[in-house]
Amino acid sequence: MRLSQFHLHTSKEVPADAEVISHKLMLKAGMIRKLASGLYTWTPLGLRVLRKVERVVREEMDAAGAIEMLMPAVQPKELWEETGRWEKFGGQLLKIQDRKQAWYCYGPTHEEVITDFARNELASYKQLPVCFYQIQTKFRDEIRPRFGVMRAREFLMKDAYSFHLDDEGLDRQYRVMYDAYGRIFSRLGLQFRAVFADTGAIGGSASHEFHVLADSGEDAIAFSNGSDYAANTELAEALAPGERGAAGKTLHKLETPSQKTCEDVAALLGIELQRTVKSVAIVGEQGFALALVRGDHQVNPIKLGKLDGLADYRLASEAEILEHLGCEPGFLGPIGAKRAIRVIADRSVAAMADFVIGANERGFHLAGVNWGRDLPEPDLVADIRNVVAGDPSPDGRGTLGIARGIEVGHVFQLGRKYAQAMGCTVLDDSGKAATPSMGCYGIGVSRIVAAAIEQNHDDNGITWPEAMAPWRAVVCVINPKKDPAVGEAADALYRELNAAGIETALDDRGLRPGAMFADIELIGVPHRVVVSERGLAAGTFEYRQRRASEPENLGRAELMARLGA
Amino acid sequence: MRLSQFHLHTSKEVPADAEVISHKLMLKAGMIRKLASGLYTWTPLGLRVLRKVERVVREEMDAAGAIEMLMPAVQPKELWEETGRWEKFGGQLLKIQDRKQAWYCYGPTHEEVITDFARNELASYKQLPVCFYQIQTKFRDEIRPRFGVMRAREFLMKDAYSFHLDDEGLDRQYRVMYDAYGRIFSRLGLQFRAVFADTGAIGGSASHEFHVLADSGEDAIAFSNGSDYAANTELAEALAPGERGAAGKTLHKLETPSQKTCEDVAALLGIELQRTVKSVAIVGEQGFALALVRGDHQVNPIKLGKLDGLADYRLASEAEILEHLGCEPGFLGPIGAKRAIRVIADRSVAAMADFVIGANERGFHLAGVNWGRDLPEPDLVADIRNVVAGDPSPDGRGTLGIARGIEVGHVFQLGRKYAQAMGCTVLDDSGKAATPSMGCYGIGVSRIVAAAIEQNHDDNGITWPEAMAPWRAVVCVINPKKDPAVGEAADALYRELNAAGIETALDDRGLRPGAMFADIELIGVPHRVVVSERGLAAGTFEYRQRRASEPENLGRAELMARLGA
Repeated sequence: MRLSQFHLHTSKEVPADAEVISHKLMLKAGMIRKLASGLYTWTPLGLRVLRKVERVVREEMDAAGAIEMLMPAVQPKELWEETGRWEKFGGQLLKIQDRKQAWYCYGPTHEEVITDFARNELASYKQLPVCFYQIQTKFRDEIRPRFGVMRAREFLMKDAYSFHLDDEGLDRQYRVMYDAYGRIFSRLGLQFRAVFADTGAIGGSASHEFHVLADSGEDAIAFSNGSDYAANTELAEALAPGERGAAGKTLHKLETPSQKTCEDVAALLGIELQRTVKSVAIVGEQGFALALVRGDHQVNPIKLGKLDGLADYRLASEAEILEHLGCEPGFLGPIGAKRAIRVIADRSVAAMADFVIGANERGFHLAGVNWGRDLPEPDLVADIRNVVAGDPSPDGRGTLGIARGIEVGHVFQLGRKYAQAMGCTVLDDSGKAATPSMGCYGIGVSRIVAAAIEQNHDDNGITWPEAMAPWRAVVCVINPKKDPAVGEAADALYRELNAAGIETALDDRGLRPGAMFADIELIGVPHRVVVSERGLAAGTFEYRQRRASEPENLGRAELMARLGA
Repeated sequence: MRLSQFHLHTSKEVPADAEVISHKLMLKAGMIRKLASGLYTWTPLGLRVLRKVERVVREEMDAAGAIEMLMPAVQPKELWEETGRWEKFGGQLLKIQDRKQAWYCYGPTHEEVITDFARNELASYKQLPVCFYQIQTKFRDEIRPRFGVMRAREFLMKDAYSFHLDDEGLDRQYRVMYDAYGRIFSRLGLQFRAVFADTGAIGGSASHEFHVLADSGEDAIAFSNGSDYAANTELAEALAPGERGAAGKTLHKLETPSQKTCEDVAALLGIELQRTVKSVAIVGEQGFALALVRGDHQVNPIKLGKLDGLADYRLASEAEILEHLGCEPGFLGPIGAKRAIRVIADRSVAAMADFVIGANERGFHLAGVNWGRDLPEPDLVADIRNVVAGDPSPDGRGTLGIARGIEVGHVFQLGRKYAQAMGCTVLDDSGKAATPSMGCYGIGVSRIVAAAIEQNHDDNGITWPEAMAPWRAVVCVINPKKDPAVGEAADALYRELNAAGIETALDDRGLRPGAMFADIELIGVPHRVVVSERGLAAGTFEYRQRRASEPENLGRAELMARLGA
């Protein structure tokens, strides 16, 4: 592509509503333009990148044996009523009434349509297993579209659906797709993690999210340095630590006049934060309780909510606290309560000895506290905290780190939920009607583009992985009007590189070097080659890898080798 | 592709609502499945064909210098209000209200969005000319969706838009796109015509429709056998015939008791139909008139409506006819009217001598009628008829034939209509704001698939042109369980053909030959190769070209040559 024949339109200003770096850089580079809230035009530059992602996804889906098809974007209400999702899906479902007053939606996902297709197309177990996929524009009417194409309303998605006679078949396919997803993100050159996930609203059993790692990610992920274990921090199990140590100190009361947090108490006493215990007062079905976690830990509301009688727990009010403990928040603890209370200790707390905790008296904490001696053993010991970096991995291999991630893919075992609701059956080998088990597998194709930028950028712009770059290389011509030989040499190199399979653009727009280089860095082309009069005379090309700090002058052979030509 | 790993699902029955052959064959072959009125799922088989069309379109657009981009499908009402089309577009515009009660539409076309893009992106004449295109799902809420994907509501379209500083630039681009369209349909292997067209609702000046020729086409096209002239029959000019002959007969009245049509009169009299004249009574701004065309011709309402004072003409009522002519329909004519009437003669009629026409008397016609002698010269002579096969081509080269066509593409010169309405300007080379001239260029990608079938089918199914076939060849295995060598030989041939660039499927589904061959013929694969025990023993393959009447037994070298491997 000669850039003089292309529509490249970078800009220096960025609208104030661009909050994240990918959104800013996509606008500055001219990859997308906003049409309306959550609706973006992909410019020629942006589309080149989007298509690269699409191609890798398609190739890996084909290689995994999935068969491409294309379902309508517009779906009739009747199908969504069969699964109850016409109401349940909520406000994200964009409902449409046609000229005959019939209701449709702009498909945010296609479980209903594919299950309808399957109940008409699949008659026999001999047609199973089968996995269909499509790459298609979808719509979710986000209440607050933002971050550009990261959370757009109209977006490009790959969705796949598999059908199986039995759950073992589903397990096998799930693993095949899981592996294909890994290859997709690896080929795209992205740092990612497959994260064990809750299935959420779609329902079913096993489920993994694929996250591109980026500091700006909305989700926190706990991952092992010794295995491929990864999970949302909220779901990762905090293992029980070793045995409880023996009591070594006597119980004593300490003055902590204004120290209401564990941090302040630890600082005052000059002890480690993890020797303190935090008391969180809650109210559940069985009434008032104290949840105890170590001073350096946080209570995990999801885990707490999964305990018996705490599904709908809430934090206690000050009045309830005063009533049960006779003390104001900041100095709470299980010792010396006014009434009998339930004590729920995190596993780490249950293993502590000689710890520090609130004295239930304004301005005082207790130190040298020991279970069994100074207070009864906890009523319940459970995992009720978030994991932290350094925790042992729940699979027993390695230590957990915490990273932030952007969800770009999701694999689900749907099971029989949709097939059952919609009466989709096939005849098994004994001639009986059997409800197939289903899997579904999504990838946010357009979101990957933004996520990749969150992970790959610097002060000058985007630093694309090779597989996603709009071009792998660009040949920049300096001042060709002064010396026609420069233009000819650049043109020859441009054609030669393309012929060698290196997708290369020629920057023949006639810009000054500074503006030209700024554009090429901004749009993130991995390899830049400058053809100039001086270089021609010296028989060299100025070469710069996008992430390198300095350019180098290379002879022809070395240049070609560096570009992999 | 091994068909055992593919989802091929043919059927014998066809729903009653499938009226045209392409719709029937696409359902039988299992290329599409209906989801709802005008909404179709493209099965894996159908999508293979659709993608082939898409690829050819994309390649030729790229070669023509058009730049691909992707605009949102959902478009805000505000843009459509700027051009007045929110109301004017009519019921086909699918209007959508989002969760915030803002109005959008599902784009049926993208003039507004691209013009909005251009007014933001294009600042200088230096960025022109430029031509953008996209291949995208569109929606038109047809009042009566039918013929499967031929007139679906949701469909795949390529739409391109060009911007030019001056009309000469637009003319050049128009010709480039016109030529590119020709290459697209030629490469797809379709018989087509570029037809001069009215611009209709979209507005602008020059316009051509591209039609795939098929007997079932909705449009009648007049085309020359001596040039590339082609036009909708309604628009093609009927040239004036030669000079009027001299009067040779005397005026005389003939009894035609029940002969009310020219055909009946000609038959009764034993004369040629083209010696008779048909009188059509109409009422326009200037009152009652008779429009005269030759007995073998038809009045063209569009041409008639373009004459002065006839923009809103209508057929006269029986009462009006009686009032002006004193006669009932069937025997009407310009001679002997009760009142002075206006006579509009088609060019052919004005050139007639000794003709036959109604006598304005029930049961009688006049023969030997001559202009000037028996009645005054016509008030107006004009082209008011449809052309017929055998007419001279309006460009003076060759003779017209009439064919039926299916519109699959359209190129327009939009001019400045949209740019003006939306305030899109660029700075010209003198620094003044100039409104660019626009062209737009559409192709109905999904409709091409159906149109190709209308043109290419036989009693056994589809007969794809090579470029559109789901596979160019299929290797059929006969009874591989009996002799493993058969399966191995078929598999080897299948891999060899694919390696040689012949896209080949392997029919390893284990069907009986009859059912297998019927499927392969139905889905229209151009080349079929059968590998059987008997063939292996003889060292031959049974080969059949889809359109050939009989298979042939070919040796390996000959087979490869025939397949172009």
